[in-house]
Order: sequence, then C-alpha cells, then structure tokens
Amino acid sequence: MDISFLGTSSGTPTKARNVTAIAIIESQGSDWYLIDCGEGTQHQLLHTRLSLNSLKAIFITHIHGDHCYGLPGVLASAGMNGRTKPLTIVAPKGIKEWFEATQVHTQLYLPYELTFVETEQFTEQAFGQFAVASTKLSHRVPSYAYSFTEVKVDASLNIEKLNALGIPQGPIWGKLKSGQDVEHEGQILRSAEFIRYLNKPRKVVVCGDNDTPEILRAECEGCDVLVHESTYTEALASKAKEAGHSYAKLVASFAQSCELPNLVLTHFSPRYQLDSEAETSMNEIQTEAQAEYSGNLFLASDFDTYRLSKLGELSLVLEK
Amino acid sequence: MDISFLGTSSGTPTKARNVTAIAIIESQGSDWYLIDCGEGTQHQLLHTRLSLNSLKAIFITHIHGDHCYGLPGVLASAGMNGRTKPLTIVAPKGIKEWFEATQVHTQLYLPYELTFVETEQFTEQAFGQFAVASTKLSHRVPSYAYSFTEVKVDASLNIEKLNALGIPQGPIWGKLKSGQDVEHEGQILRSAEFIRYLNKPRKVVVCGDNDTPEILRAECEGCDVLVHESTYTEALASKAKEAGHSYAKLVASFAQSCELPNLVLTHFSPRYQLDSEAETSMNEIQTEAQAEYSGNLFLASDFDTYRLSKLGELSLVLEK
Repeated sequence: MDISFLGTSSGTPTKARNVTAIAIIESQGSDWYLIDCGEGTQHQLLHTRLSLNSLKAIFITHIHGDHCYGLPGVLASAGMNGRTKPLTIVAPKGIKEWFEATQVHTQLYLPYELTFVETEQFTEQAFGQFAVASTKLSHRVPSYAYSFTEVKVDASLNIEKLNALGIPQGPIWGKLKSGQDVEHEGQILRSAEFIRYLNKPRKVVVCGDNDTPEILRAECEGCDVLVHESTYTEALASKAKEAGHSYAKLVASFAQSCELPNLVLTHFSPRYQLDSEAETSMNEIQTEAQAEYSGNLFLASDFDTYRLSKLGELSLVLEK
Repeated sequence: MDISFLGTSSGTPTKARNVTAIAIIESQGSDWYLIDCGEGTQHQLLHTRLSLNSLKAIFITHIHGDHCYGLPGVLASAGMNGRTKPLTIVAPKGIKEWFEATQVHTQLYLPYELTFVETEQFTEQAFGQFAVASTKLSHRVPSYAYSFTEVKVDASLNIEKLNALGIPQGPIWGKLKSGQDVEHEGQILRSAEFIRYLNKPRKVVVCGDNDTPEILRAECEGCDVLVHESTYTEALASKAKEAGHSYAKLVASFAQSCELPNLVLTHFSPRYQLDSEAETSMNEIQTEAQAEYSGNLFLASDFDTYRLSKLGELSLVLEK
C-alpha cells in the first residue's frame, strides 16, 4: 500500500508545498482514498497517476479551510470528467452543510451520488482492502485521525490440520483460504481456524491537526506508520499565537514511547524553508525529531509517495 | 495599465492552464484588481509580483465554480498574511451568501472588513485610477462584463486661454491641471475648460461567460481591449452539449464589426492542446479568429501580462 502526499503545508500554500491532502492507495489495482482536500488538490492530482474515477472515498479530518476548500473543485471536476460511481465522504459535522450550501449558491450539479457520513457517528467501516476507523484528536475545532488497516492478508492453509480432520482437498480448501466459512458434513468449518497469516495486517494512521499526540496511544497499537502534523519546532510553537498544533519534539517523543516503527511528519508552517541556510529551516524540524525518535523518520514533501511493504517496511518510492 | 492572466481554462484546470482569474494592474504603484477567482488563484499569485495586500477590489463575473471557488482561499490567506485593509467584492447575487455560509461552516474569521456589492445593483463606481462599470451578458446564470476606464489622463493646460483671461500663473494653474475647479475673483473656473487631454482615457472590458458578444456593442464604444471567452471553435461549439459559451468566429467577427483595436481570447476548453499536432489544438482557435478579425489578436496563456500603453497599444510584456 502507498501513501502519497499531495500537500504538506499548514494554513497557506507556498511555492513548494500545497495545503493538506493525502492519498492512501491500495496495493493492487488503482483504487485510492483521499484524506483531506485543501484548495488546489485537483491541480496536484493532475501531476500524479491518481484518477478521480478510481477514488473510493474521501475522509476529512476537520473543517478548517486548508483541509477542505478543495472539496467543491474535486467533486465538480470528477463530474465534468464523467464520474458516475457513487462516492462516500466521511467528514465532521459542518462539511455536508457547507457543501450543500455551495451546491445551492453556485448551481453545482453532480452526475453521481454523494453519501456523507458524519465522523462523529463513524466507528469502523470496511472500504475496499481496508477497515477504516476514526479517533478524536485535540484541536480548536473537532479534528479526527483515520486509521487504515488491511482486511485481507496473504495466508496459507494449515494443511496438517485439514488432513488430520480428513477434509478433502478441493473447493473447500479454496473457500477456507479465501476467508469463507464452509459447511462440511453438517459441521461449520471456520476459515480463521485453518489459516496461518503470512504477515500481520498493515496499519497506517493519518491524523488531522492535533496538539496532544498522547491521545493516539490506543490507536497506535500495531500501527506500522503514523502520519502526524508537526507544524512547528518547540521554540516556534511557544511563540505562535494560535493553539492546537504539535511540534516535532512532541510527536517524535510520543512515537518513541509507542515504539512506532515509522513516523512521517507533515503540515509544516510556511515559515520553514527547504533552504538549510534560511532563518527558519526544515532542518530544525528534522534535528528536533531525530533527537527524540530512533525509528524511521520521514519529513514529507509534496508528491512524495511512500510504499509500505507487506513486512511493514516503509520507503520513499517516488519524489517530485 | 497591465492585464495579467492567472487562469485561462474553462471548467477544469489542466497542467498548463488554471481556471479563470484576471488581474488589472494600475500603471503606477502596485494596486490591482482581481476579476474572477477560480480555485488555485492564490497559488498562481505566488508566482507573480502581485500582493494580496495591494489588492483593491474583487469583481466576480458569475457564480460558476470555475470562476469563484478560489475566493475563500484568497480571502483567508490575505488575512493570514496580515491584511487589515478593507476589501470590496462586486459579485452577482449568491456569492455573498455562499461566502458567508463558508465562513460559518468552516469557522473562517477575517481580520479585515469585507464589503459586498451586488452586481445587479452596481452601475458605475470609481476604484483608484479607474471608473468601473458592468454590463449584463447572456449565459446560463447571470453573468457580467466589467469595464475599466481610466479616470485621470495626462493633460496639459491651455495656456493661451489662461493668459487671455488674465489668470495669473501659480497655484490656480496647478489646481486646474490636477482636475480641481477653482474660485477666482468671484468666478468658478472649471478645470475641464482649461485642460487638453494628451491621450484618450484607456478602457479595457473584461467579460464573464457569454454566448452573445453583440450584447457588448455599446460597452465596446471607445474600448481599447476586449477580453472575451472563446471556449470553443465553431465546430466544437455546435457539438458541445452545454450552452452559454462563445466560439472564436463569433467573438472575432463581433470585434471586427466594432473595429476594436485589440482582442484577447481566453477561457479555452481543456480539449484544446498547446501541441499543434494534437487532435484539437489551440491553432484552430487562432486560425478561426484570424479569418474574421484584422486587429491585434492575442490568445492568453497563464501568466501572460499584457501592457496597454497610453497610446492604446497592447503588447505582451511577460510570458511564463
């Protein structure tokens, strides 16, 4: 499964970074999921292989503009490009109302069905290869993390057990391996009892704005990758007037305490420049996080694609 | 005065063209006016010298998404970047209501005052160096053109007349030259009676979506530059299902009949490719327009800046 960053700036876009949008891409086929949709997300998509026709669902973390102002454009363009498949949007209260007001005032008609699910009412739901769950975070407005856990994992059959019980090789074995329970000679054979998973299910947690990483401890159980905002360094966080955001040290020390194998930081304040000579540079975020965290640390850039292998190894496979 | 194109595509953005936004820039200083504000306008601005702090007013031609979905982002970013100066938005009915719904649902607070003027109620108003007027066009929803006419034009005093009337050289002459009427020995001296304009006032008409250029005949009187959509060629216009748009021949033949000196076409369907070998190429629009129009014809590209000289000559001064 891949994680593609379409925007990695907080608040306003810069020449190098757009505002937030993240794609989770299934490991087979072209289906994908969009988490957040800052203004210009449809423009960023033009430079990727992702098609609005293969978009399975949109998840919005919170209703601030830098996370949702691209939604009307993405939905309108999907329609103009011929999408007819229904689309689900999981979003906090307010997004549906705003989008419906947008449709009315700007006379936007969509040639496909939209279903809104309020994150406040959302517990867990299957979307394609994933079970998606939400966790409430701490921010100035209701903000959520979404976790994506693989539903189907490569498995082998416990052939010794099947033979010992005298279950004949054939369609029954195939069904059990594909996860189906089977009735055989008046008995229910449970697939789960005959399967050996070759790997543990992959799990990625993608967070909205959040000033308390600790709130994620339970959700980070068994998690391979945490994608979390690091708007500031500790020094700038204390100077910034606005509350509700995390800084590198806070997130990194939390990730260390959870023994998280992979941490991707994003949503950087526009003050942080790529130029290491700049007054406020991305190097500071890197250095501050590295001092706390011994796992695999990544600072996302726009158009970075990270691949999570079946073994839970994360690597950057595509850079801009 | 300059005309900068920030977006020249209709409906959806392409890799080469954003959706509509056009800047009119005053000939002195850095004040400017934005006409339409498609999604991604604030991103385009990052690649120009235009500052959201020097933006004097926004004019929206109509409420379709490709002309207005960038408005919340532009207004929010102006605030985050420290704007405190009030801003006027002239826009058709619906934009104010949509923006206010956006503010409520996405908790957007602006640190400056916004004044909305409904285009339906707008006749003519002075903005900086310009008198701005609107003309109703023909489209699927109410759509307008905005004309920008210079208010102050270089002038010389009619010295012979002043001397003949015995008006002494000094402060009186200065006031008359700057356009002020003056009381002198119980008589009102009207500035206009002592001034010789060196050039006629420059006038630019920028149009929203419109399927009937003829509607602009009166507004094109004395106009130096007409900026008009040419979404299609004649062949594609008849095939396109949607109504309400113009094609190259229609606009060009109208411009010819008005003896307009300069015509800039924009708002091209994403079907038209820059590549002259493409199935549907920009060359077709150029060829179709040129066959009808003998004035100066330009097909706008994103980041093109055209300068209108005091003599009414239009030239491309900046290309991407």
